[in-house]
Amino acid sequence: MKRMMFLIVAAATFAGVVGYTATATRHTDEEAAPLFVKTIPSGYREWRLVSVAHEEGNLQDIRAILGNDAAINAYREGKLPFPEGTIIARIAWRHVASEENNKILGREQSFVPGEAPPWYLQFMVKDSKKYAATGGWGYAQFDKDGKPGPDSDLQKCFPCHQAIKARDFIFTRYTP
Amino acid sequence: MKRMMFLIVAAATFAGVVGYTATATRHTDEEAAPLFVKTIPSGYREWRLVSVAHEEGNLQDIRAILGNDAAINAYREGKLPFPEGTIIARIAWRHVASEENNKILGREQSFVPGEAPPWYLQFMVKDSKKYAATGGWGYAQFDKDGKPGPDSDLQKCFPCHQAIKARDFIFTRYTP
Repeated sequence: MKRMMFLIVAAATFAGVVGYTATATRHTDEEAAPLFVKTIPSGYREWRLVSVAHEEGNLQDIRAILGNDAAINAYREGKLPFPEGTIIARIAWRHVASEENNKILGREQSFVPGEAPPWYLQFMVKDSKKYAATGGWGYAQFDKDGKPGPDSDLQKCFPCHQAIKARDFIFTRYTP
Repeated sequence: MKRMMFLIVAAATFAGVVGYTATATRHTDEEAAPLFVKTIPSGYREWRLVSVAHEEGNLQDIRAILGNDAAINAYREGKLPFPEGTIIARIAWRHVASEENNKILGREQSFVPGEAPPWYLQFMVKDSKKYAATGGWGYAQFDKDGKPGPDSDLQKCFPCHQAIKARDFIFTRYTP
């Protein structure tokens, strides 16, 4: 990871590239450079529900947001920032019509993922020291085969989550 | 409950009404008449996720389907019928745009329930003897204040779920 970041910095410097990548990795202290989570947190499918969501536009997904015990407890207590060790999972499936349901219901209304594997998985892992460069959260993305997404995708996470700094960078509210 | 069903039968008979209500309640053995669940199963918000769904048409909701341990285990083992004591919960929220998210994302794409209470709650409780008249499942519905829905609403559940008898009357598949 550090070696990869070094190469990115070197390439960016050499090419005179400016922008987020260069900005975020030009620190002389390598610990402050963004790090991303590359392993799927174990047991996430056992976690409790934070909320659900549907995203249209380019995404067209339907999602469950789950949290480990630290996440759920903090949400319910309304405590911010989230404690160290908090992990929030976003399981996203394609938002597709259910032919089975619609046939029974007699109209086009039902969208369920069925037994399809997740389209993609995302996580935010709270470790204030390790992920200091990105607000104390490590970001992760995996495709349906469990393969980690490229750093170029992950570098887009924090700039957007910065808008919600007042809630410790977490968009999703706990839905009772 | 039995008294209410008796009154419905009496009224239906008196008025010569035919249809589902009369058909389902004309049994001489009162145990075979439909019974519904009138109490919210405790601890359902701690249960694990079965799947998510979005329903359009008249509903316009977004849902999480949760299951108690018996439900999740049976789903994962692919065992049918579901064992006695299985409870499946459907928490449905209104499918509403998130102004907060859309402002940050710069476009209309995000639908999340936020901190809104559930629009309605529904349950299916497996008890083959008690709910023999409705496929071994007791149906329940509660509004956002926890008030049980009218029997006239609950009588609509089983006729539709009968279409999915091959999966023990449960529409929702487990989504990995």
